[in-house]
Amino acid sequence: MNSVAANETFGIVVHGGAGVMQNLSNEKQNQIKSKIKESINAGYQILENGGSSIDAVEAAVVVLEDSSLFNAGKGSVYTSDEKQEMDASIMFGKDRSIGAVASVSNIKNPIKLARKVADQTEHVLLVGEGAKSFARSVNQEIVPDEYFFSEENLKRVRKIKQSAAVEKISMNKIGTVGAVAIDINGNLAAATSTGGMTNKMPGRVGDSPIPGSGSWAQNNVCAVSSTGHGEYFIKYQVAKEVCNRIQFLNADIETAAKEIIDELNEIGGAGGVIAIDFNGKIAMPFNTPGMIRGNKTNKTDLEIKIY
Amino acid sequence: MNSVAANETFGIVVHGGAGVMQNLSNEKQNQIKSKIKESINAGYQILENGGSSIDAVEAAVVVLEDSSLFNAGKGSVYTSDEKQEMDASIMFGKDRSIGAVASVSNIKNPIKLARKVADQTEHVLLVGEGAKSFARSVNQEIVPDEYFFSEENLKRVRKIKQSAAVEKISMNKIGTVGAVAIDINGNLAAATSTGGMTNKMPGRVGDSPIPGSGSWAQNNVCAVSSTGHGEYFIKYQVAKEVCNRIQFLNADIETAAKEIIDELNEIGGAGGVIAIDFNGKIAMPFNTPGMIRGNKTNKTDLEIKIY
Repeated sequence: MNSVAANETFGIVVHGGAGVMQNLSNEKQNQIKSKIKESINAGYQILENGGSSIDAVEAAVVVLEDSSLFNAGKGSVYTSDEKQEMDASIMFGKDRSIGAVASVSNIKNPIKLARKVADQTEHVLLVGEGAKSFARSVNQEIVPDEYFFSEENLKRVRKIKQSAAVEKISMNKIGTVGAVAIDINGNLAAATSTGGMTNKMPGRVGDSPIPGSGSWAQNNVCAVSSTGHGEYFIKYQVAKEVCNRIQFLNADIETAAKEIIDELNEIGGAGGVIAIDFNGKIAMPFNTPGMIRGNKTNKTDLEIKIY
Repeated sequence: MNSVAANETFGIVVHGGAGVMQNLSNEKQNQIKSKIKESINAGYQILENGGSSIDAVEAAVVVLEDSSLFNAGKGSVYTSDEKQEMDASIMFGKDRSIGAVASVSNIKNPIKLARKVADQTEHVLLVGEGAKSFARSVNQEIVPDEYFFSEENLKRVRKIKQSAAVEKISMNKIGTVGAVAIDINGNLAAATSTGGMTNKMPGRVGDSPIPGSGSWAQNNVCAVSSTGHGEYFIKYQVAKEVCNRIQFLNADIETAAKEIIDELNEIGGAGGVIAIDFNGKIAMPFNTPGMIRGNKTNKTDLEIKIY
């Protein structure tokens, strides 16, 4: 196990969802890459100034939640009731503090609300109207339905409703967002935020707010954020499972992360993860045609990719 | 790994929560033991007739949900709004199918609703009003608030509200219920159901509905149901962690389960687990003064204990 002081590497990894991502124009790709860069820089700046990894992942995710390009915060897709219900979680490896919210509506930044749950309650997970009441009590920004309006997203849910099926990840969908980081003190953190699946049943919760499935951060092991078909990621506890294989099998992070994503692929579980270990080593495997992803450390240059 | 056909042992383990359990009169202890016996027998009968472990754990939990003696279903404690919000999860190790509901009100049997989520949706977890709408659509019994009325529970929440604190597990509280089983085909299953903590914030969700924390069932490894201070059980992924130590470290189930409960005790995480492994071997460790628990297999007689 490594020392927790003056860690050699600090850095951040960000994702903007896994999927097929066909028909992404060059212009759209550039918009996405530019926003991912902004997200990485927001987190990296905090790390560079000696800030904590949990502050870094929160800041990185807020940038993506505030963009309409991703399925989280402002860009969240519509439920079958044509509303937004968002899920988010954040975890700090130093003390295993976790905050999560699920099935929340009209919250501008679900990841900020999740952080408030971690910092200002004795609880881990708040859902629905109770979470919204808590948001008001801690002065989190509540926004009207119109804030989330998207003609493209609305067309999509109506088209899917006609075919009476929940959207499959194999459709051209840009997903969940997330970030993992390690700070100068060796503390790991993970954050994940999503609008879920288009046309999902109201009240449906995926893996994003589930500790161990959507997010996991364990000091001296690794931090992981997942994106993909949530139900599979819950059944295989994907985020924690990457850490398990490092902790129990001494696997390196690239092997641990790639193996579980390959195993999911064999059973039809589409998606990917971003992961960073206690040495700042990074893995970003996915089994879909694309996953929006990027990273930057004090040892490696900014890298941003979609395919 | 063992064969999945004609398993040598079949059996069931049930719990009715961990806690201090002071001042339990002999009469109350006898009522509790009698209900635990009824729960075990309901599940065991299914196993004896060649039924599946998931049917057995569901049947066992329904018996406890229908009793006012436990903090689940009918006996669920009050939130700070003086209502009931219940959580439940069920998992079948054969195919990792999972169903869970969280923060549901007016549902007579949350564990039955969780089973419906597993069997009749593509989802894993439904919460709040969305879960209630789903309950109506699959003809689950909805009951009025009065069904849950308990003068004792109401007095308790009002007393705690005066002191403005969430009930601690160290108080005299009888908790969560759960069951784990292995059937004649070697399939493992786990189920957990709870009313949560007295005076909890509306929307607060504990470990019971969280796969990996409250319930976990993995064929050829083990099945676990947790009871205790939910936030700790989420942070340490207790149910899955018992299985991890068996799977990755070749620990026997008694060591695996006892070690994690001891580790929780060191950091103030009160509670216990029931666990059964792929050979039908049982563990029931707890770090509280008492845990209501019992078991029966085709190799061992009925055993029921509180302290």
